Amino acid sequence: LTDNKNKFSVKEFIHQSMAIIIEDAVKKATDVREKVCEWRSPDQLKELLDLELRDGGESDSKILQRCRDAIRYSVKTTHPRFFNQLYAGMEPYSMVASFIAEALKPSLYTYEIAPVFTLIEDAVLRKMMELIGWEEGGDGIFNAGGSMSNMYAMNLARYNHSPDIKEFGLSAAPRLVMFTSQECHYSVSKAAALLGIGTKNVYVVPSDKRGKMILSALENKIKAAKSEGAFPFMVNATAGTTVLGAFDPIEEIADICEKHNLWLHVDACWGGAALMSKKHKHLLKGIHRANSVAWNPHKMLMACLQCCAFLVRDKTQDKFYDISYDTGDKSLQCSRKADAFKFWLMWKALGSIARHYAYFMPEFSNVCFWYIPPSLKNLPDGPELYEKLHTVAPVIKERMMKTGSMMVGYQPHGDKPNFFRMIVISPQVSKQDMDFVLDEIHRLGKDL
Amino acid sequence: LTDNKNKFSVKEFIHQSMAIIIEDAVKKATDVREKVCEWRSPDQLKELLDLELRDGGESDSKILQRCRDAIRYSVKTTHPRFFNQLYAGMEPYSMVASFIAEALKPSLYTYEIAPVFTLIEDAVLRKMMELIGWEEGGDGIFNAGGSMSNMYAMNLARYNHSPDIKEFGLSAAPRLVMFTSQECHYSVSKAAALLGIGTKNVYVVPSDKRGKMILSALENKIKAAKSEGAFPFMVNATAGTTVLGAFDPIEEIADICEKHNLWLHVDACWGGAALMSKKHKHLLKGIHRANSVAWNPHKMLMACLQCCAFLVRDKTQDKFYDISYDTGDKSLQCSRKADAFKFWLMWKALGSIARHYAYFMPEFSNVCFWYIPPSLKNLPDGPELYEKLHTVAPVIKERMMKTGSMMVGYQPHGDKPNFFRMIVISPQVSKQDMDFVLDEIHRLGKDL
Repeated sequence: LTDNKNKFSVKEFIHQSMAIIIEDAVKKATDVREKVCEWRSPDQLKELLDLELRDGGESDSKILQRCRDAIRYSVKTTHPRFFNQLYAGMEPYSMVASFIAEALKPSLYTYEIAPVFTLIEDAVLRKMMELIGWEEGGDGIFNAGGSMSNMYAMNLARYNHSPDIKEFGLSAAPRLVMFTSQECHYSVSKAAALLGIGTKNVYVVPSDKRGKMILSALENKIKAAKSEGAFPFMVNATAGTTVLGAFDPIEEIADICEKHNLWLHVDACWGGAALMSKKHKHLLKGIHRANSVAWNPHKMLMACLQCCAFLVRDKTQDKFYDISYDTGDKSLQCSRKADAFKFWLMWKALGSIARHYAYFMPEFSNVCFWYIPPSLKNLPDGPELYEKLHTVAPVIKERMMKTGSMMVGYQPHGDKPNFFRMIVISPQVSKQDMDFVLDEIHRLGKDL
Repeated sequence: LTDNKNKFSVKEFIHQSMAIIIEDAVKKATDVREKVCEWRSPDQLKELLDLELRDGGESDSKILQRCRDAIRYSVKTTHPRFFNQLYAGMEPYSMVASFIAEALKPSLYTYEIAPVFTLIEDAVLRKMMELIGWEEGGDGIFNAGGSMSNMYAMNLARYNHSPDIKEFGLSAAPRLVMFTSQECHYSVSKAAALLGIGTKNVYVVPSDKRGKMILSALENKIKAAKSEGAFPFMVNATAGTTVLGAFDPIEEIADICEKHNLWLHVDACWGGAALMSKKHKHLLKGIHRANSVAWNPHKMLMACLQCCAFLVRDKTQDKFYDISYDTGDKSLQCSRKADAFKFWLMWKALGSIARHYAYFMPEFSNVCFWYIPPSLKNLPDGPELYEKLHTVAPVIKERMMKTGSMMVGYQPHGDKPNFFRMIVISPQVSKQDMDFVLDEIHRLGKDL
């Protein structure tokens, strides 16, 4: 790198870029007085950033400016007024852990190549299994996302039902059917497409008004599938749905699974965090009876993105599962990152972090609400109000993005018009920030 | 964090941990005078690291010591004498890019949430497609590994052949068959299991002595599959095999695919880098005719782990594919990292980095060799020599790990006894380092 007169020494470049990262990407990004985003349209941003890759290299001072610009125009997901996603906040221990992993580049194939991180992954998985309540332990793997975890679950459930499919494929097999609620994550449907199960063989069970799977409807769907000559093999229960934050009744679903001999997977990517709280863990009552669980500490537990565990109760050996520390054979990935380390270091520093939960309302931390502008205040409940209300949130969101003061998502749901879904995770969020959100929405939308 | 008297301020903690990362995980880890690894058995290491997670938290000085220890006992994959994997070396620009992404926590769902990084991903993908030679462009996605890319390819190839499988699953479909060489990556078989295709429906085509797929054998396998009533849908060609670094003859395979109307995927995870070299790109002649390509810039191009692109020539819209910058719908993952940024920043700094390639011998940078200890020098070529030779590399490897002076992998291959596979990637590797490897192997194995 030093053969070019426009290049600093490696040491100097790293030193200067670290100063920028700490100042701009950590300190400023989490400063409530700064913007959450500095909105530019794709065309404006393309021009500002000069994205094209050319044959020649650039000076190091130019590269440092590029770092500053990339940070400046990025959304600050760690900002206290970022409520847009199922993750938020800056957790310094896990951030440091992730920097260490990025610098060392471990890949969790084998103990030989990643001794520290394979042992740490094992320790974290064991702790998570303890919290789930699997007294005999189990197995698991950190992977590249909750969607992947749900996919692992469907693959194992299928293997459990018909092990021959692994070798001979599904074309020789009867029609397999699985069950999930209408509120489940869209990864279930994606995985059904990918695994050759077929999206139409995911039977969607209706949920009640709060978003919980209706048990009698599940029973009916299972019976219907059997009467069609199909083979039910699995139920996916959701602990913390994406939109409403609802928890399916796991205990009762486990009874049904037992009765019909079905694999029970709990997608607790979002809601698993409640297992760390004495007060809230009842939301997942019965989870110890699940055959597999997906749980992402990068969501409510604030570990650095990504930190996603897939856990399985049974230790049955298949080619994907090996009890030694050489995890290569149980992963769908080949290279695999040391994501567990981010959760481990954070836990070591903070201890069991149940105290973080402040905002569970009414059940979990998805706060869903309409903003009703003054002009609609006197409209009676009914189609006219709903139709007009449907257009309010998108306009406010557009103005919010252009102002850059905060980020809150919105969506429609069933026959309900667009509403805001505010996700409150970070302990760095103050009462003032909560007030700010309501005031700002009013300021941005009162003329609508 | 400041409610505990054993805690520093966040600023102070980050400052001190950064100093450790730069000193231990960057500077010392890449210093040729330091060890590549400090070997401990799992039991020793568990005791040293005190891995268990408890309810209480620890002081920040304890946490900083934990960071030092995690680094100390990790394998230094960035060390100049690490030749064990298909990645190596420390590339400062991409490391800095990865730190920025870790601090900002972008997730590439939509332009709204990751404006800078969705545009950068798009720019990098377009450049890679230009290098492949797709004049009309195409589409692509960075994802969590080459294994995932190969899985995407198989899913798209299947969709291309029988779009109904997505909805109705494979149980209603005829038997689909794909073809790959005996030297291909094991992810092809994994993906066949996962996708419900079945491992037995991956027809393995023999390779020649250099590791290249034998064309006549491919033709025969396709004919055999058809005569069995199966439906061939795809050929996977490997550009840079894992063990030998061999390149399948893509141009000729493309002819065969055209003739039989099969999807051609090129797994160029390892060998794709040669596309950036005028001298070596002939190795991938014909790649512009592929329907899809997997290419990992984290391997020979030294981008920080992971940096893996899946590219597809056709822009056909399916639910997984959306032409806008909102990439959420085309990904199997939900959260998805800004991996393209690591390659982009590095390219901006260095330009087209063809000059990095030094060690292509005989064809690519997999250097495979036996060490023959003095005691075996006079044995004639034959079963006795092979049997004895088979035990040499494992013993040397064990001694190498315990010494910690370097890391080179070994494996058997077909009927060949264990040999060393040395992967030379990093431009930080000197002629001295190369000499050291041979001297050290001799030192460790001369008594065998």
